[in-house]
Amino acid sequence: MTHQTFNVAIVGATGAVGEQMIRTLEKLDFPVDTLLLLSSKRSAGKQLTFKGEQLTVQEAKPESFEGVQLALFSAGGSVSKALAPEAVKRGAIVVDNTSAFRMDENVPLIVPEVNEQALERHKGIISNPNCSTIQMVAALEPVRKAFGLKRIVVSTYQAVSGAGVDAIDEMYEQSRQIMDGESIDPQILPVSGDKKHYQIAFNAVPQIDVFQENGFTFEEMKMINETKKIMEDESLQVAATCVRLPVETGHSESVYIEVQEEGLNVEEMRKLLSEAEGVTLQDDPQNQVYPLASESKGKDDVFVGRIRQDLDQPKGFHMWIVADNLLKGAALNSVQIAFSLIKLGLLK
Amino acid sequence: MTHQTFNVAIVGATGAVGEQMIRTLEKLDFPVDTLLLLSSKRSAGKQLTFKGEQLTVQEAKPESFEGVQLALFSAGGSVSKALAPEAVKRGAIVVDNTSAFRMDENVPLIVPEVNEQALERHKGIISNPNCSTIQMVAALEPVRKAFGLKRIVVSTYQAVSGAGVDAIDEMYEQSRQIMDGESIDPQILPVSGDKKHYQIAFNAVPQIDVFQENGFTFEEMKMINETKKIMEDESLQVAATCVRLPVETGHSESVYIEVQEEGLNVEEMRKLLSEAEGVTLQDDPQNQVYPLASESKGKDDVFVGRIRQDLDQPKGFHMWIVADNLLKGAALNSVQIAFSLIKLGLLK
Repeated sequence: MTHQTFNVAIVGATGAVGEQMIRTLEKLDFPVDTLLLLSSKRSAGKQLTFKGEQLTVQEAKPESFEGVQLALFSAGGSVSKALAPEAVKRGAIVVDNTSAFRMDENVPLIVPEVNEQALERHKGIISNPNCSTIQMVAALEPVRKAFGLKRIVVSTYQAVSGAGVDAIDEMYEQSRQIMDGESIDPQILPVSGDKKHYQIAFNAVPQIDVFQENGFTFEEMKMINETKKIMEDESLQVAATCVRLPVETGHSESVYIEVQEEGLNVEEMRKLLSEAEGVTLQDDPQNQVYPLASESKGKDDVFVGRIRQDLDQPKGFHMWIVADNLLKGAALNSVQIAFSLIKLGLLK
Repeated sequence: MTHQTFNVAIVGATGAVGEQMIRTLEKLDFPVDTLLLLSSKRSAGKQLTFKGEQLTVQEAKPESFEGVQLALFSAGGSVSKALAPEAVKRGAIVVDNTSAFRMDENVPLIVPEVNEQALERHKGIISNPNCSTIQMVAALEPVRKAFGLKRIVVSTYQAVSGAGVDAIDEMYEQSRQIMDGESIDPQILPVSGDKKHYQIAFNAVPQIDVFQENGFTFEEMKMINETKKIMEDESLQVAATCVRLPVETGHSESVYIEVQEEGLNVEEMRKLLSEAEGVTLQDDPQNQVYPLASESKGKDDVFVGRIRQDLDQPKGFHMWIVADNLLKGAALNSVQIAFSLIKLGLLK
């Protein structure tokens, strides 16, 4: 095996996910030759550190991608739409963290533990799924493989960092204002581009991303459609309710599933999950052991607990799934996709 | 109609719910002759105000209930078990807000909008259901009446005030400590009497009340069993996942239901709920109108929105149900039960 290294670009390097992408490349010792940090014009000029070296963030332009072999995008859908094809045109493989291309039939939507092989069909752009989708499918794949999946009903408990660094600031500022008896002035959450903004501190807001015609939000439809695409099963029934919470980092999910085959029980599901790649079982109710968002921050795995068999449906199971939405939900999964590309001989 | 007044006692008058019971008797102008405020020995001697009058809280003893016609209990299950029978022995009707007697077949479990008539069978003690159960059945009853209910899958987003005033203090203190970079020392939540305590500030904790042998928490089993009892349908399938959030007051619920009859759609459900007693419809996604915990505090109604038909199950519907857990979830429902007792000629 040769020890090839790659010219890597991060688009959106100054954002919440971009920062984690830099840290993840370091932590997993990704074979980087040169690292190019790109951003909007506004953030260009900032200094960021990679492996002890100071790098200056540059404005992302089509020409930026000359000589780049791998480009990790996380700067919003419109930037991906404009620049990802430019990167591909110049020979880069793009791993895109936005929703811009996820449902494009020519774009593989990848969680390596689930559907790594779908990378073979890529045409230059590979999509990283929505954060809430990734952790759910990573946890459910071992169950699907062994017993089949018929339906999923999920309610999410999502952290503000999924909405960016400004949303984190807003949550903390509002928290202080409310505790100090001051008035608040929501400007960002639940959706920065939407018409109205609501209190996030000490609240639970049932809107993530904008509403669709059918009454579901776009975040909910992402979970529904992306899950079917990743698991390659259009007949899988998926329903989602997505809720934003005053949590900085760490998405939690209350998930109900029905499997296809008989014979699954709680012990068997625990065994499947305890052996699953990228999953940590935390399920000991008698000792109050279950996954917590506050414990997930900075950790790579998807944590699963509160596994219960439904009291009426023998093929029905409930569980609580937690992961760091900036890591497995975004930066880590993108870098894992890049490792899979190397492993499959697709990144050269 | 005579204008009879009643001697009323509140047991647990200094607690979070007790305080709301006093305020609710005032607000709804309940026909009080004398009001007796009772508490533990520790809280006895405190001064509280009712209709502008200063009242001294007294220690609750069996003899306290001499001459009392209506006793509202909210001082924990052990106090109710010890003193509710003593109050009944002395001629009072007890409305108990704890779980002590809820599943007793001789004790009606009442949400007036749903099963007021079951009060006729009372033998002295009437139970007020769990807060999470009340708001859910109040919102679902109009749908059940018109289309029948087959199953309910609920995930809750519950406020800390349901765990008492100490839990509220802990949440705010922890929030400040975390924002100030200080260490935290959880002592109360998720369950004051349980072995371990976890961070509640900026977190989501999937445990309310203690774990049962079957892996469900007692709170989850309350929602399951109480819903069947109130709706008088043992075949109704109910599953619950109960989660505590850093919200002061206002429980939210992500609820999935399947109805029995065909023909229900979103418009019809909105119509049913907009006409329902005690329910306010807040469901206009295009204008970002949906219920919020932060807006529910101090309000009497149960708020319902985010109504969607399931994309795979024509008889399946999703919704978001929010209510003030101290009011409709506790104090208000107890006082409404008392009004129903008067209306039915049972409180004399």
